Amino acid sequence: MADKKKMVEAITSRDTDFAKWYTDIVKKAELVDYSGVKGCMVIRPYGYAIWENIQADLDRRFKEKGHENVYMPMFIPESLLQKEKDHVEGFAPECAWVTIGGSEKLNEKLCVRPTSETLFCEHYAKVINTYRDLPKLYNQWCSVVRWEKTTRPFLRTSEFLWQEGHTMHETAQEAQEETLTMLKVYEDFYRETLAIPAVVGKKTEKEKFAGALATYTIEPMMHNGVALQGGTSHYFGDGFAKSFDIKYQGRDNQLHYPHQTSWGVSTRMIGAIIMVHGDDDGLVLPPKVSPIQVAIIPIATHKEGVLEKGKELYDRLKSQFRVKYDDSDQSPGWKFSQYEMKGVPVRVELGPKDIEKNQCVIVRRDTREKIFVSLDNLEAEVEKALQAVHDGMYQRALDNMNEKTFVATDFEQFVKIAEETPGFIKAMWCGDKECEEKIKDVTGGVKSRCIPFEEEHLSDKCVCCSKQAKHMVYWGKQY
Amino acid sequence: MADKKKMVEAITSRDTDFAKWYTDIVKKAELVDYSGVKGCMVIRPYGYAIWENIQADLDRRFKEKGHENVYMPMFIPESLLQKEKDHVEGFAPECAWVTIGGSEKLNEKLCVRPTSETLFCEHYAKVINTYRDLPKLYNQWCSVVRWEKTTRPFLRTSEFLWQEGHTMHETAQEAQEETLTMLKVYEDFYRETLAIPAVVGKKTEKEKFAGALATYTIEPMMHNGVALQGGTSHYFGDGFAKSFDIKYQGRDNQLHYPHQTSWGVSTRMIGAIIMVHGDDDGLVLPPKVSPIQVAIIPIATHKEGVLEKGKELYDRLKSQFRVKYDDSDQSPGWKFSQYEMKGVPVRVELGPKDIEKNQCVIVRRDTREKIFVSLDNLEAEVEKALQAVHDGMYQRALDNMNEKTFVATDFEQFVKIAEETPGFIKAMWCGDKECEEKIKDVTGGVKSRCIPFEEEHLSDKCVCCSKQAKHMVYWGKQY
Repeated sequence: MADKKKMVEAITSRDTDFAKWYTDIVKKAELVDYSGVKGCMVIRPYGYAIWENIQADLDRRFKEKGHENVYMPMFIPESLLQKEKDHVEGFAPECAWVTIGGSEKLNEKLCVRPTSETLFCEHYAKVINTYRDLPKLYNQWCSVVRWEKTTRPFLRTSEFLWQEGHTMHETAQEAQEETLTMLKVYEDFYRETLAIPAVVGKKTEKEKFAGALATYTIEPMMHNGVALQGGTSHYFGDGFAKSFDIKYQGRDNQLHYPHQTSWGVSTRMIGAIIMVHGDDDGLVLPPKVSPIQVAIIPIATHKEGVLEKGKELYDRLKSQFRVKYDDSDQSPGWKFSQYEMKGVPVRVELGPKDIEKNQCVIVRRDTREKIFVSLDNLEAEVEKALQAVHDGMYQRALDNMNEKTFVATDFEQFVKIAEETPGFIKAMWCGDKECEEKIKDVTGGVKSRCIPFEEEHLSDKCVCCSKQAKHMVYWGKQY
Repeated sequence: MADKKKMVEAITSRDTDFAKWYTDIVKKAELVDYSGVKGCMVIRPYGYAIWENIQADLDRRFKEKGHENVYMPMFIPESLLQKEKDHVEGFAPECAWVTIGGSEKLNEKLCVRPTSETLFCEHYAKVINTYRDLPKLYNQWCSVVRWEKTTRPFLRTSEFLWQEGHTMHETAQEAQEETLTMLKVYEDFYRETLAIPAVVGKKTEKEKFAGALATYTIEPMMHNGVALQGGTSHYFGDGFAKSFDIKYQGRDNQLHYPHQTSWGVSTRMIGAIIMVHGDDDGLVLPPKVSPIQVAIIPIATHKEGVLEKGKELYDRLKSQFRVKYDDSDQSPGWKFSQYEMKGVPVRVELGPKDIEKNQCVIVRRDTREKIFVSLDNLEAEVEKALQAVHDGMYQRALDNMNEKTFVATDFEQFVKIAEETPGFIKAMWCGDKECEEKIKDVTGGVKSRCIPFEEEHLSDKCVCCSKQAKHMVYWGKQY
């Protein structure tokens, strides 16, 4: 196990320095390379394969709900971006601007899209004429750019990959339902596919999206108690429709403005996977998105029949799972630590003695639990192990979130928790922005995460100003 | 059929005005919308669904050959672009430049990628160390920008979607083989998936890619005899490796430069599909990429049992094919012309009399041939019809290409053919750029398409200057 020790030593321990542990994993597991372009990352094959699995799963969920994919231009003329006042104020400071094209200075500068509401609206104004054209349920997979000063792979980069859904509806109610439906799609996806639990709810006025009437959010907690805004779903009402003059002839023969939503998740989710599930040996990947679900490692490969038997198992499993058969001349120890670093959920070990007994060893990445299984039941046992890994990962993440969720009923208690035990704080709030700002200032960054759909009644008073409380809010620091 | 007539009248006839016919189809079939961003298009759901089917098919072919997907930044710093001299000269005039980011003027301007050789090389310099790291077989799906003055949907736009493969190899021979392997992948894809025949071969020095040692191309012919450069595969030798200082330790323990390729196809292919297969009633889509393969249209829907039986057929077919069941209240005639416009390969009609006889009518989009089939064999008959449409489309495209391929053995004849009968001209060539330029000038745009892998010997003399001929070349005008 000398090899293994050496590899593992190269990673900072998660509890010693979470930030360094994170960047160590990102490099060591070959997810990302830093590029010479400020704030932009290279997503390497192993990282991109995770993204492809995420895309395929989400895309299926979107299409099942009737959404269609489209592609809008990556450039937004300045005048188009300015059509919705709140929206441009929110995004203009983060824009990258193209000012020269084909060796000539442009008459109007073009923003590289930070998000595409304005482009979708410009198109919708042309293709929506009557209620028969509604709803429009469009989605786009693309990259967007938001100029960032300090960046971190997956969590905050000047360019990132995402999907943005943009829908138009006949009624406000239908649009509001869509907003919540898509939040639910994200919640299901996080739980069923990423094995990540989360708090969901509504953002406060202060934290909502530029131009939205309401923003809903999914907020998973990282292992260290810090939140990540994991996905958002916005209800716009007819504000953009008015700014962009989008009208349809209704069933009553009158002209109406349609009602709009948008919703998106991004490559940040890979950051969440790392920080929710990873450990001191590296990545721990949810089986549903892991590029390799099963690594088969033959032991004592010089012994007769081992390599052949390993190949046989590979051939049996590969139609059902994403399998890697590693028959390279590296030592088993090196391979063990390699696939642990890469977070492969299930390892199958096979040596001469196992072959004699018609068995192999299945090792779970999350718990290191080893079980001997008969080769006769291999497919079923691997399936069972993958499900057990998924369930175990979800449960541990849920336990961690629950352990690090606290209640504060007065300000002193709130500040103490915020300083000593990073996590979510449940506390009552009066509804005023000033209290949010005071909390953020005093605690060095704790912000309202969301107002959950089911609020508990913890007290009558705002935790900050002691005035009449309006809502129970989840609070916490964020990436 | 009044409805149908009306819709069809709205399209310009293909033989009357090919260019107008093309843009009519692009709009009427709802593939594209023009955007307010100069030279950029909106790809609408129906157009994008074709692209998704193209992507899925090609991506499978790439992965079967061992390629992995990655994502590189969309920006290239000016200094990085300048590292390879020929390359920057080829692309700098077409670049869009970001000069402002986050409200500040950038110290170095950033080019929005026109192609990503330089970014791949910068990354390869970091991750290639020994021969064990080779080959690197990377591919990227993304959008690229090349500033264009005159644009046309799919054929020439300032931004377009594509894939770019970039590979690194131990030996020149291996890289050359990769270049030809990927050209063959494109050729197979055009034939098997798009039902498009093409001429393949090597570009002349004049026409090769900026920075490449050799460029290979696939050149399908559009219905009007004009060529489209349908995809290219480049062999770079170690030129970029030297410029970017990419070295690996070889099996001989010495440092070597690896050998490189790149290859790409783009949304242009959708333009090729339209112009190779389309007719005066609209699109004719290859079954393999058509978003709808079968449209089921119930006739006399007010008669008892028709709608239910139609739904029953839909339920039977939908697990095996991409099916649309149109039970809307539009007339059958309107629906017929609608799905013809959209190029749906097979239509299934079902009326009360058909139901009585336990049959339905299958209508092929390409030939309008109608056949009555027993409902007992529906799946097999639809499968057969789709295959017949594919084969028929390929054969007609091949016949068209053969009919419009001519031989010229002297210059006068060459010019006459170029003026009177658009198509490919096979003619001998001395190898001099001057003759290519003269031919282009005199004919108003005829360029060398490629030197095919199997050259015919048409004469000893260059068709232009009458000097000793070196190669037989395919010539033709292009989009």
